[in-house]
Amino acid sequence: MFLDKDFLLNTETAKKLYHDVAESCPIIDYHCHINPREIYEDRKYDSITQVWLGGDHYKWRLMRSAGIEEKYITGNETSDHDKFMKWAEVLGKAIGNPLYHWSHLELRRFFGYEGILNKDTAEEVWNLANEKLHSAGYSVRGLIDMSNVETICTTDDPIDSLEWHEKLAADPTFKTAVLPAWRPDKAMNLEKTTYLDYLAQLEAVSGVKIDSFAALKEALKVRMAFFHDHNCRLSDHALNYVMYAPATDDEVEAVFKARLAGTLPTPEQESVFKFAFMTFVAGEYKRLGWAMQLHYGCRRDNNPTMFAKMGPDTGFDCVDNYAPSAQTAAFLGHLEANGALPRTILYSLNTNDNAAIDSILGCFQNSAAVGYVQHGSAWWFDDHFDGMVDQLKSLAARGYLAGFVGMLTDSRSFLSYPRHEYFRRILCRVIGEWVEEGMFPEDMDTLSEIVRAISYGNAKAYFGFAEK
Amino acid sequence: MFLDKDFLLNTETAKKLYHDVAESCPIIDYHCHINPREIYEDRKYDSITQVWLGGDHYKWRLMRSAGIEEKYITGNETSDHDKFMKWAEVLGKAIGNPLYHWSHLELRRFFGYEGILNKDTAEEVWNLANEKLHSAGYSVRGLIDMSNVETICTTDDPIDSLEWHEKLAADPTFKTAVLPAWRPDKAMNLEKTTYLDYLAQLEAVSGVKIDSFAALKEALKVRMAFFHDHNCRLSDHALNYVMYAPATDDEVEAVFKARLAGTLPTPEQESVFKFAFMTFVAGEYKRLGWAMQLHYGCRRDNNPTMFAKMGPDTGFDCVDNYAPSAQTAAFLGHLEANGALPRTILYSLNTNDNAAIDSILGCFQNSAAVGYVQHGSAWWFDDHFDGMVDQLKSLAARGYLAGFVGMLTDSRSFLSYPRHEYFRRILCRVIGEWVEEGMFPEDMDTLSEIVRAISYGNAKAYFGFAEK
Amino acid sequence: MFLDKDFLLNTETAKKLYHDVAESCPIIDYHCHINPREIYEDRKYDSITQVWLGGDHYKWRLMRSAGIEEKYITGNETSDHDKFMKWAEVLGKAIGNPLYHWSHLELRRFFGYEGILNKDTAEEVWNLANEKLHSAGYSVRGLIDMSNVETICTTDDPIDSLEWHEKLAADPTFKTAVLPAWRPDKAMNLEKTTYLDYLAQLEAVSGVKIDSFAALKEALKVRMAFFHDHNCRLSDHALNYVMYAPATDDEVEAVFKARLAGTLPTPEQESVFKFAFMTFVAGEYKRLGWAMQLHYGCRRDNNPTMFAKMGPDTGFDCVDNYAPSAQTAAFLGHLEANGALPRTILYSLNTNDNAAIDSILGCFQNSAAVGYVQHGSAWWFDDHFDGMVDQLKSLAARGYLAGFVGMLTDSRSFLSYPRHEYFRRILCRVIGEWVEEGMFPEDMDTLSEIVRAISYGNAKAYFGFAEK
Repeated sequence: MFLDKDFLLNTETAKKLYHDVAESCPIIDYHCHINPREIYEDRKYDSITQVWLGGDHYKWRLMRSAGIEEKYITGNETSDHDKFMKWAEVLGKAIGNPLYHWSHLELRRFFGYEGILNKDTAEEVWNLANEKLHSAGYSVRGLIDMSNVETICTTDDPIDSLEWHEKLAADPTFKTAVLPAWRPDKAMNLEKTTYLDYLAQLEAVSGVKIDSFAALKEALKVRMAFFHDHNCRLSDHALNYVMYAPATDDEVEAVFKARLAGTLPTPEQESVFKFAFMTFVAGEYKRLGWAMQLHYGCRRDNNPTMFAKMGPDTGFDCVDNYAPSAQTAAFLGHLEANGALPRTILYSLNTNDNAAIDSILGCFQNSAAVGYVQHGSAWWFDDHFDGMVDQLKSLAARGYLAGFVGMLTDSRSFLSYPRHEYFRRILCRVIGEWVEEGMFPEDMDTLSEIVRAISYGNAKAYFGFAEK
Repeated sequence: MFLDKDFLLNTETAKKLYHDVAESCPIIDYHCHINPREIYEDRKYDSITQVWLGGDHYKWRLMRSAGIEEKYITGNETSDHDKFMKWAEVLGKAIGNPLYHWSHLELRRFFGYEGILNKDTAEEVWNLANEKLHSAGYSVRGLIDMSNVETICTTDDPIDSLEWHEKLAADPTFKTAVLPAWRPDKAMNLEKTTYLDYLAQLEAVSGVKIDSFAALKEALKVRMAFFHDHNCRLSDHALNYVMYAPATDDEVEAVFKARLAGTLPTPEQESVFKFAFMTFVAGEYKRLGWAMQLHYGCRRDNNPTMFAKMGPDTGFDCVDNYAPSAQTAAFLGHLEANGALPRTILYSLNTNDNAAIDSILGCFQNSAAVGYVQHGSAWWFDDHFDGMVDQLKSLAARGYLAGFVGMLTDSRSFLSYPRHEYFRRILCRVIGEWVEEGMFPEDMDTLSEIVRAISYGNAKAYFGFAEK
Repeated sequence: MFLDKDFLLNTETAKKLYHDVAESCPIIDYHCHINPREIYEDRKYDSITQVWLGGDHYKWRLMRSAGIEEKYITGNETSDHDKFMKWAEVLGKAIGNPLYHWSHLELRRFFGYEGILNKDTAEEVWNLANEKLHSAGYSVRGLIDMSNVETICTTDDPIDSLEWHEKLAADPTFKTAVLPAWRPDKAMNLEKTTYLDYLAQLEAVSGVKIDSFAALKEALKVRMAFFHDHNCRLSDHALNYVMYAPATDDEVEAVFKARLAGTLPTPEQESVFKFAFMTFVAGEYKRLGWAMQLHYGCRRDNNPTMFAKMGPDTGFDCVDNYAPSAQTAAFLGHLEANGALPRTILYSLNTNDNAAIDSILGCFQNSAAVGYVQHGSAWWFDDHFDGMVDQLKSLAARGYLAGFVGMLTDSRSFLSYPRHEYFRRILCRVIGEWVEEGMFPEDMDTLSEIVRAISYGNAKAYFGFAEK
């Protein structure tokens, strides 16, 4: 039955593995986009619309795809209530979409609503959810507590003061560790017109005058040390693709200095600089013991009209299917040859890259970690039932699934933790099917060990997280 | 059991949805390659070979793959009977191929033959089918009537007189609306050696002297108005890939005028011209309220020897896996920014493009239609069980399946309407599995609404078709 | 139950087809990398580690992925026993990986071990397997005899003396035919620094002075005749991708002569030469009646550090996702137009190429063979349950599965023959599901004919093999 206790668990093995093992594992959400200030200040919400539709471009896209007017999606002129009615109408017919499962899981786990959300029940759910949101325990910290979250890693710019992380670390009343993660895209993207402004800010916080690429590297090292002191243990990068464009130091400096003087780079120069940048930071990550996450294969801001109105991250991104696996392999090989390959997690937005990624992993493993180079969990447009099944099966068939670091929410919402439940159910389902098909022995000790590791233990060990 | 009442319907939900909802929906075949003259003149067939093997390069390919000599496929020296014997022998072992299902569905639905076609039954089927074909009701109009077809859109060149459409529109005895669809490939493909001859014909029918790209656009507008008056509501384009190659008007004119003077374009000039051409026609489609179909990812006429003998569309095409999603997105973004984005349907022949396409759709939706930009039904080499399942699941997971405009035959044959049945069975199967797996509630009202919309209602609304 | 009699056979139809038809078919292993000398000399093994871990980079990769130190994988300082313990520990958790199935099939079929191999049973298996290996019948010839192998094709360089093939052919005590297969990569790869040394060797064995491309072709013809006399009937090529780069004879000669003079080619010149090389050899294959295997989509030796230590084929290769289907089609079209297209088998390491390959096949079929151009069985990183299912279904949906030449081991190990069993079980499973889903009639005669052909008969007919 829809979303019952055994949702997605279609074998006895899957049920046992989920309920006896996976269900109770704490969550390590090692990559997300939530705001640490909202945790520290323990934000409350006026309405379910605010928490669900406030910044969730996944939902906005779905509404636009169903022909809903923008005023009911992001418009200021429409009430939260009316937006919710439209959302409920669209969701009610969103068969096959992960938002259908996520939204209903959230209604059950956080609000205790066991029914279906659609245009007929929208008013009832609106009232119920808002009542709960206005009651005790439904602040941000309450939602996190309800979700059994052990560790959260946010996504932070090198110039960030990390003041909210510092305050949270000092607060003994909140049990979840909230750690920063280093995302230096703005320091790398020298083709942006705002780049020099950014460098000025980086100069200010680092105390290093940035008049050369060497100086930029110094400034970044200062900030990495600062992040490391605040328990940062992993980084994240958004790349068009993983590039390989070796050049001499002088060539890189020339591109950077021209940019300082106001000259935008050619595409070739851009690649040369970014490759040098990535090579440098990867080496530092290796030295510091950080993991490096590479997210690639996204083309952003495809709708010029809407970009002009709404800016980035508003639901107008798509898969860029250009990502040569040869360059990814060459980049990692270059790092390896220079002793500069950190633990690395590869995420492509193009589901067709699964096989190539899983074959690349095996070229760069070593005994410093189980799964030293990892294939990240199905990401964004692939973060759904079929996408997760494909990623798990491809990784298993071409690599070592038992060493996988597992799920992350990648979310902007404090209601997203059931995505870990969703992932774990799918993991147990896939494994259960293998067992009941006779493709793996029914050895519950080994199976439990594997499920526990992927749900929790592998991430903890891989990133070296302690409990708070 | 093979091809019984519940063929492909492996759940109770699927059976209900198909038999109660999908089965009786009229067919809107919004894209095909049948000849309107044959409808008007109500063509009859001498033999099943004529109707099955007369122009169906899908079947020809399969026979060649099985090692059959060409004389039994397209040769003039071989009798219809002998060709049919060979076809039956090959089909009898064509396990896993959609032709196996299509052919048997056609034998059941049109000829009432409940058995299996193979080398042993070939003679029996030959006699039965031919007897039927020579009997009343087995003309082209009869076959269409049997199939409950409400609307057919053919594929027509801008220079077409549309005389047969006109005659059919004026004929009250035939209930199916037969509408033209605009396919201006020949007006765009300036790299062809026959291009100037084509322009001469276009000049003649439009009354516009084509001495510039501006004049070409005028001529096309004249013809679009003519097509619109004949109830054309959609266009179709065959592209290598969706290009993005902006240039100034002067640059485009220079390429076109050089071509008028006999100079073939470089590949870059070809892209520049085609991009300008597509941008222009898209804007006109938007203005007229037409939908734009983009078919891409095909490399044609790969066998030079056979091309020399038989010409195009004879079974020698393949998937071209070069189609940068970034250019598709940039092209649509360019149209959007210029207020020139019509309702659009994207079809790639490369099944690996599903995810990219489904992510692109969401960037360009708006409230002028449900699913303003659509992912077309699995096409040609993907038009089979697995291909359709993949397209449906990818669209559902990344977009709004409930708004999908659904199936079309894309066929040259008047026996192809059971492909709609095949699609609807697969649609109901996929939905049925979701429901019985607990992935969507067993809410038959909502499910029926979704199935009816995808089988019939969405296409009717999207294209704005009235019944005849 | 895991790996029981009906392993992977989830329908009654599958069980019947496997046990009544596929199981007893002899093996034609038309592509592998075993050493004919070891067959002739009837090599024996000291330990299961030697036979399993001695040269199997699939296993090495898996161990590295699980974080095992290299000394337990390929190190000289570690005992066979200790390596086996580590391997058993890793394998015990390798859920979803084909090595799990292969290894356990090998333990059952060759050693009669019915249990599970993991860290707890490692010692028991170590003792059992080694005891067997030291007993009669466990030499290389014994292992081959146990496997019902009718024909083996090895992989041989043009300069190979073929002395071991000759001796085996002359040995009436060994029933399996061991034939050479022609792999001239070293004669083509003029970008390698070792190329001139290779040419010197080729000169010596052919007796042709290689001072031009024309002379190289002569030398190769001499060697092809020699191979043909030794019953070689197929060739094999490792390509980055299938290239299309036509040039004049003079241009090709210029590139080659520059290389003779020590000048390495540019990438463009490399393509020009390789295209000319491939065009020449393909024509010769056609003339001789050989089949041509094209393996492409691999990027090799990605880990510079490990390459320096261990050389090629040690587990550091990955999928190269660059392979334009347009060039593959153009190359085959070029051959066809010149009467130089031999029977051809296409293998891409990129699973995403399935659809394009299956659509290309159909452009070049002819009545000289069933499936004149073939899509090779799922290869290397795709040679697992899902990979094989995908290859079979794509081939069936887009081509003529019944004409498929089927499985090969591609292995360096004499224990790999159960991979044919694995393939046949999967083949019967896929067919069984189609039948029991009502997608193909339950006509056991036709089904048996298809299964027997794919398991055995097609390969025998396609390559023209006689029994020894």
